[in-house]
Amino acid sequence: MTTTADNPLRNGVDTAALFATIDAVRADPELAKFRFRATNRWVSGTHNESTIHGFYGAKQDMDHRVASTFAADHPAVLVGEDNGPTPTEYLLHSLAACLVSGLANIAAARGVNLSEVAATVEGDIDLLGILGLSDEVRNGFGQIRVSFTLRGDEPEKLRAVVEQARRRSAVYDVLTNGVPVAIEVDAG
Amino acid sequence: MTTTADNPLRNGVDTAALFATIDAVRADPELAKFRFRATNRWVSGTHNESTIHGFYGAKQDMDHRVASTFAADHPAVLVGEDNGPTPTEYLLHSLAACLVSGLANIAAARGVNLSEVAATVEGDIDLLGILGLSDEVRNGFGQIRVSFTLRGDEPEKLRAVVEQARRRSAVYDVLTNGVPVAIEVDAG
Repeated sequence: MTTTADNPLRNGVDTAALFATIDAVRADPELAKFRFRATNRWVSGTHNESTIHGFYGAKQDMDHRVASTFAADHPAVLVGEDNGPTPTEYLLHSLAACLVSGLANIAAARGVNLSEVAATVEGDIDLLGILGLSDEVRNGFGQIRVSFTLRGDEPEKLRAVVEQARRRSAVYDVLTNGVPVAIEVDAG
Repeated sequence: MTTTADNPLRNGVDTAALFATIDAVRADPELAKFRFRATNRWVSGTHNESTIHGFYGAKQDMDHRVASTFAADHPAVLVGEDNGPTPTEYLLHSLAACLVSGLANIAAARGVNLSEVAATVEGDIDLLGILGLSDEVRNGFGQIRVSFTLRGDEPEKLRAVVEQARRRSAVYDVLTNGVPVAIEVDAG
């Protein structure tokens, strides 16, 4: 913590608390086991809503300060009513947010100052897959691109922070390496 | 379309428009190329916001009816200020929403009536990975589970609709099979 003792709230990150948390988890790895959750309710057509509130972590059930509800839908061009972004756009958001949250922590831990961070995430998708019109086209994005603009300390330090964020991002890991998804159905 | 002519708005889905869209794309596959986008702006610490508005598809740039902005943050237990869900929770939401939007379309196309659809999506994550405390623990979710409750027509028809939604979900495909992610950085 010596590198940040002169500025414990660098980039808005409480680095003392961050290092203390890492030390606590190192001492008791059971604290690191988290379970996140979203509950979704169909509204009509392609319109549905997820609520995010409770989660498990650090050996206890917890709640976010407020429950958040997010509407998803398809746009009119895809026969929806555009009551919210498409599910795939939320996926792009989750990747952007994970990389940006991570790099803010990493920059603070390294004593690197940020003044501005912006990211644009784009994903290319050919709907011949999900429309069942081609067996050769995959259902999901064929490619995702992330473009960062960072301002703050020296460019090479900023680039190194982004690289470490990529190496430690939960969402980047899941998107690039895949994850097992089990589905169970209560139908009646 | 004969199976749905008696009920063109089954489950809130305009099945005539859905089939017409599929026919139009079959005739001109270029219409199927979409590009979705989220832009993210760092606020402070692990707090950042994505905006979703414009996208490309059907050979043109388009906008959603409204621009949507979503805050992401880490909870207090993870040294954030809990200004919104974590990025990983948005990922779970995107999976739930994609499966539910898809199954509503598929049910309508098959003439299957839905009265209720609910889904809970949970993901297990061991933070020893992203905290850099273990090289053997991955950064992202080790496992995701989706639990559906469906009510409507016969259970076996409902279960078949969920199975087809899984087989045609863009987000399920990306999460289970992975996707290339390219990152570029403008640092100055």
